[in-house]
Amino acid sequence: MAFLSNDFLLSNDTACQLYHDFAASQPIYDYHCHLAPADLANNRRFGNLFEAWLEGDHYKWRAMRANGVEETYCTGEADPYEKFLAFAKTVPHTIRNPLYHWTHLELQRTFGIDLLLNEDTAREIWDEANRQLAEMPVASLLDKFNVALVGTTDDPLDDLRHHQAIAAGSLFSKTVVVPTFRPDRACMIQDGEAFDAYVNRLQSVSGVDCATFEGFLEAIKQRHDFFHEHGARISDHGLTHIPAPFLTVRGMGCGQAKTIFETRGAPQKDREEKHAAFVRDMLIYLGELDAEKNWTQQYHLGATRNNNGWAMDQLGPDTGFDSIGDFPQGEGLSWLLGELARRQKLPQTILYNLNPADNYLFASMAGNFQGGPGGRAGVPGKIQYGSAWWFLDQKEGMTGQLNTLSSMGLLTRFVGMLTDSRSFLSYPRHEYFRRILCDLLGKDVEAGELPCDIPMLGQVVKNICFQNAKAYFGIPLKTYVS
Amino acid sequence: MAFLSNDFLLSNDTACQLYHDFAASQPIYDYHCHLAPADLANNRRFGNLFEAWLEGDHYKWRAMRANGVEETYCTGEADPYEKFLAFAKTVPHTIRNPLYHWTHLELQRTFGIDLLLNEDTAREIWDEANRQLAEMPVASLLDKFNVALVGTTDDPLDDLRHHQAIAAGSLFSKTVVVPTFRPDRACMIQDGEAFDAYVNRLQSVSGVDCATFEGFLEAIKQRHDFFHEHGARISDHGLTHIPAPFLTVRGMGCGQAKTIFETRGAPQKDREEKHAAFVRDMLIYLGELDAEKNWTQQYHLGATRNNNGWAMDQLGPDTGFDSIGDFPQGEGLSWLLGELARRQKLPQTILYNLNPADNYLFASMAGNFQGGPGGRAGVPGKIQYGSAWWFLDQKEGMTGQLNTLSSMGLLTRFVGMLTDSRSFLSYPRHEYFRRILCDLLGKDVEAGELPCDIPMLGQVVKNICFQNAKAYFGIPLKTYVS
Amino acid sequence: MAFLSNDFLLSNDTACQLYHDFAASQPIYDYHCHLAPADLANNRRFGNLFEAWLEGDHYKWRAMRANGVEETYCTGEADPYEKFLAFAKTVPHTIRNPLYHWTHLELQRTFGIDLLLNEDTAREIWDEANRQLAEMPVASLLDKFNVALVGTTDDPLDDLRHHQAIAAGSLFSKTVVVPTFRPDRACMIQDGEAFDAYVNRLQSVSGVDCATFEGFLEAIKQRHDFFHEHGARISDHGLTHIPAPFLTVRGMGCGQAKTIFETRGAPQKDREEKHAAFVRDMLIYLGELDAEKNWTQQYHLGATRNNNGWAMDQLGPDTGFDSIGDFPQGEGLSWLLGELARRQKLPQTILYNLNPADNYLFASMAGNFQGGPGGRAGVPGKIQYGSAWWFLDQKEGMTGQLNTLSSMGLLTRFVGMLTDSRSFLSYPRHEYFRRILCDLLGKDVEAGELPCDIPMLGQVVKNICFQNAKAYFGIPLKTYVS
Repeated sequence: MAFLSNDFLLSNDTACQLYHDFAASQPIYDYHCHLAPADLANNRRFGNLFEAWLEGDHYKWRAMRANGVEETYCTGEADPYEKFLAFAKTVPHTIRNPLYHWTHLELQRTFGIDLLLNEDTAREIWDEANRQLAEMPVASLLDKFNVALVGTTDDPLDDLRHHQAIAAGSLFSKTVVVPTFRPDRACMIQDGEAFDAYVNRLQSVSGVDCATFEGFLEAIKQRHDFFHEHGARISDHGLTHIPAPFLTVRGMGCGQAKTIFETRGAPQKDREEKHAAFVRDMLIYLGELDAEKNWTQQYHLGATRNNNGWAMDQLGPDTGFDSIGDFPQGEGLSWLLGELARRQKLPQTILYNLNPADNYLFASMAGNFQGGPGGRAGVPGKIQYGSAWWFLDQKEGMTGQLNTLSSMGLLTRFVGMLTDSRSFLSYPRHEYFRRILCDLLGKDVEAGELPCDIPMLGQVVKNICFQNAKAYFGIPLKTYVS
Repeated sequence: MAFLSNDFLLSNDTACQLYHDFAASQPIYDYHCHLAPADLANNRRFGNLFEAWLEGDHYKWRAMRANGVEETYCTGEADPYEKFLAFAKTVPHTIRNPLYHWTHLELQRTFGIDLLLNEDTAREIWDEANRQLAEMPVASLLDKFNVALVGTTDDPLDDLRHHQAIAAGSLFSKTVVVPTFRPDRACMIQDGEAFDAYVNRLQSVSGVDCATFEGFLEAIKQRHDFFHEHGARISDHGLTHIPAPFLTVRGMGCGQAKTIFETRGAPQKDREEKHAAFVRDMLIYLGELDAEKNWTQQYHLGATRNNNGWAMDQLGPDTGFDSIGDFPQGEGLSWLLGELARRQKLPQTILYNLNPADNYLFASMAGNFQGGPGGRAGVPGKIQYGSAWWFLDQKEGMTGQLNTLSSMGLLTRFVGMLTDSRSFLSYPRHEYFRRILCDLLGKDVEAGELPCDIPMLGQVVKNICFQNAKAYFGIPLKTYVS
Repeated sequence: MAFLSNDFLLSNDTACQLYHDFAASQPIYDYHCHLAPADLANNRRFGNLFEAWLEGDHYKWRAMRANGVEETYCTGEADPYEKFLAFAKTVPHTIRNPLYHWTHLELQRTFGIDLLLNEDTAREIWDEANRQLAEMPVASLLDKFNVALVGTTDDPLDDLRHHQAIAAGSLFSKTVVVPTFRPDRACMIQDGEAFDAYVNRLQSVSGVDCATFEGFLEAIKQRHDFFHEHGARISDHGLTHIPAPFLTVRGMGCGQAKTIFETRGAPQKDREEKHAAFVRDMLIYLGELDAEKNWTQQYHLGATRNNNGWAMDQLGPDTGFDSIGDFPQGEGLSWLLGELARRQKLPQTILYNLNPADNYLFASMAGNFQGGPGGRAGVPGKIQYGSAWWFLDQKEGMTGQLNTLSSMGLLTRFVGMLTDSRSFLSYPRHEYFRRILCDLLGKDVEAGELPCDIPMLGQVVKNICFQNAKAYFGIPLKTYVS
């Protein structure tokens, strides 16, 4: 089969049928990404392919560094075309890496460019893509990719003015844009002064006195309400792992957070344990907030950040020096979800693991918390084993997630793919996911492991691509969306 | 290939030949299950498909909950047909989950029903299966599935009267039924009053004074002897992980169990460490008992139980809220097996892991303890890397276990599959396993990775299906069995 | 396909083309093995197949033990042919284990013997192989397998006289032999008297007074210089895991090693933490030495050793009782590499994991440290995710490593395979690796996941087989090598 053909990743007839007849036309429901709300509100027009592609993409920087490219061409001072050229020279060295597929899918799907990117084609591709980008503001990209929803990622302190502007305007014919409540920094009491500054800003933004813990919680609730008013129905947490049960053993049962918060400036023993207890209590509180409003909470667990001391000194965080950790995950997850369940306040929840060694643990953990009070009654797949995340967002990773979910839970109830991206050109990752999904189902049919019931399987495909997410999150979409 | 055809899971000619000519006719040696001895002794007749299928099956409850079914239709008050119907509605949503294959295999193999179970077919299947079940007591099920041995799972306190009745009677023409010694509760000193009550019952059942630790051990040995007299040759342990080596560091070397046992009522420090040291010392003692009588011990490691606080409050344990943990496994296993080996009392042992991330660790750990004193001399595969367990008992899990065992040890010496089931309809899981095994071998032959020596491979298949287990456990079978 | 045919492991035409036209003719660059320098210097001639194959091969002993063979035929007193016969009887039981492929590949490639080894063929194979071995000294084996480089593994105390003899002579027409600096024992302060003895020997070998820590470090540097003069450009470390960050928390930041070293004879608290801190500080020092001379350091992490107490008492270490551990790997690796980076002294590094559950962690960790100061400027793939190691050195393991590396990093920049072997007959493992590599690429091409650009892919294959390693390590080879 030719590279990136019409039947790319579809190895059998059933897979082709499922993809082309059912998956391809489904809208994209991108419930978790890191697109800049300002770019959306301002309908940003990218000056060139560097801005659209390389400005903030740590995947590409990592590949370039692994290829021996100097930092000046990654995050440094080189001019945009030089950086693009350095990337173009790296692309042929990325075969079998997801970047190779993403890069060429994005060129084809966005610009209709069929060339393979390398040193020889770099200039031609640069010129053609830039020419098209001049006529391709953000709104037209969302339109082109049939995006029904974009869920950005926002700090509770955010004033959501870009979201207000988007909601008030009529930029997007098909796309609803909603904020996501990501209160990580409200939990980072270990950061000392940075946390104090955060609390101060929270106080001024919310207008609630945060001197006491009760005030602090009230202020957070106020922001949660504010996000709710602006359409948010999803929260998100990024943590190495959930701290938990050992704390009760050491006499730090739930409810210690008040003391820990209010004495945080004083010298004290067992700082680390106290900070963990604080996080744990906050996660209970935040989960209850979500349950009360029928939100969905997301846990992204397992990243180890800022590993490279030299790069951290030179370049700061979020520059491509994060990776996969091996933190203990089971006990904390079990404790937190179990405690929320016991309180009858367990909201709809999506669990994402970064280390694929944890796939089975996460997927089977989700199965412990289906049903029960909290979340909308009778919602199928209340606890979701989330889509392959970050380093796992590639063929082997997606296949692993889909197979694990299938064996441990109900694939048919899966809310599906998201981009988690900072780039408006990343939407073909949904297509990539859909092709992999259809190929797995098609293979099973042709091997006699599934009945050859195309209408039934087609509906499953449509559900996983779009309909399940639409029903699960319960966010109103634009009327056109079927 | 049609769904569930005669060549289900057999993707090549060699696989078909190996399965149909060698595997299919082998008896089933089900050395570990949770069938109720009373059902066996009483030759239970199931009133309907609910009793046979749904009464105690947490796999099905979990799937139903994940499908949004209310608890009343899982473990609750709904009537049997309503519950069956709720399950029937869930089945189409279980595609790619092992339940989908198990359900339809069991309908075909037990009742000859080829229909796919769903809302529309529920009534017809219910009526037909119930009609047949009326004529299908337990003895006829064991006969139908050609079961040579059933190993139940029993507490040391059990009086084994059902096993006595079975042995004394002539219910089963082909099937030997033996008890398995599962002394988990004799190790759970952390349970306080429940442990005390257990010790008291042990004292009255055994007639041995358990005030001292020596008496306690003697009483356990008495029960072990009693089980031996009733045909038991296998023990079983369920633990999160083996506690071990750090204890010697903290001054809790072997032999602390006496003090810990005898002072268990008194207030004390380091409770958790002491309880772990107690478990560890008990495992040494129990392993020695097994070695002295040429028994086989089983370790089932890695489950995290009763995770859902709400469900535990409402429904109690064993209702479908257990899952896969990520406990440290290597050091404890290495210490325990190494210490038994050092004492020249390491019995034949089967190691089962629940987290597939531990596959390679367990399989390679087994390789450290082959041969040496303990167990019957010269037994091949003395330490077994056990069959895919519980959540892993599905195609991906079985394939992983077989591939890991192949790469790390000797597949040819594997004692094979068991059901681990509470249901008399689960025997097709042996067929499922055998098809997967034959398919792997067949693929290797057709790819030129194994010689095409059908008689040799056919013998390997027969050995793994039945003959290896028969030789390994050394339990006398009914004479018919070849 | 017939077993072990010309297209063994090559399942498609593209794979065949890539292997036969590009991979097969590349020289072998065996940068890490455990061949005995004396055997090389003396151009050893093996008396029989036992000496060449079974004398020190713990893989084979493990398989024999798992097959129920008594220890006398493994490491014991039986005569060479009896041992060989016991192995021959075991071979048919190793199907699907790498030994089955290795054994028959080695018979074919070394001796042209196509027979399958078993009890019946044992005598014929023994006679024929022995006849050929009489004319097949080490030099002719290296020639036959086209070995461009052999990197042995040597203690810093080694006088390298065998390496000197090899360098001074002209035994090998194609092969460069270099030592590797493996300072494990210089870090094992926990060994007490054995460590003291090591320090004393270091003092006499180096002529540097090791009473102070500064002297100890100077003596190590002297040995490092000495190895460098003898052609060494690679170091190697074997550890369960890198100890690290918790130590700073407990007041044991870097620089504690001096005190720990100089007070090591005195009674003290927190021995374990201090020993870990010592190892950690030594790894920093040793990494800096490597960075200063543009060496490459290797980390082999994750083995658990001497697990079997009985075997350790009877047979001592390195007799086949080691296996795979589940040590926490992420934090230590992140800390050590991060600290070396911060000091601008991170050398080229190869990371090997033994537990495949850590594949993604290791491969993504490597990605955090590409580029930056240390190592030769602009070297691609500065931090390598190393080849599948020890228990992973088989088809599933290699495939896993190649796929993980592909998804997490740049496969194209991979320095490829090594034997890690103690046997001169192990070179077909390179062929085995190359076939697997070509098959993966070929499958991708035929599935449309890679462009069908044979010259480009052929160059990638040649690079991974040989050229990348040649460029990466920068060791001068014999002139013939292209």
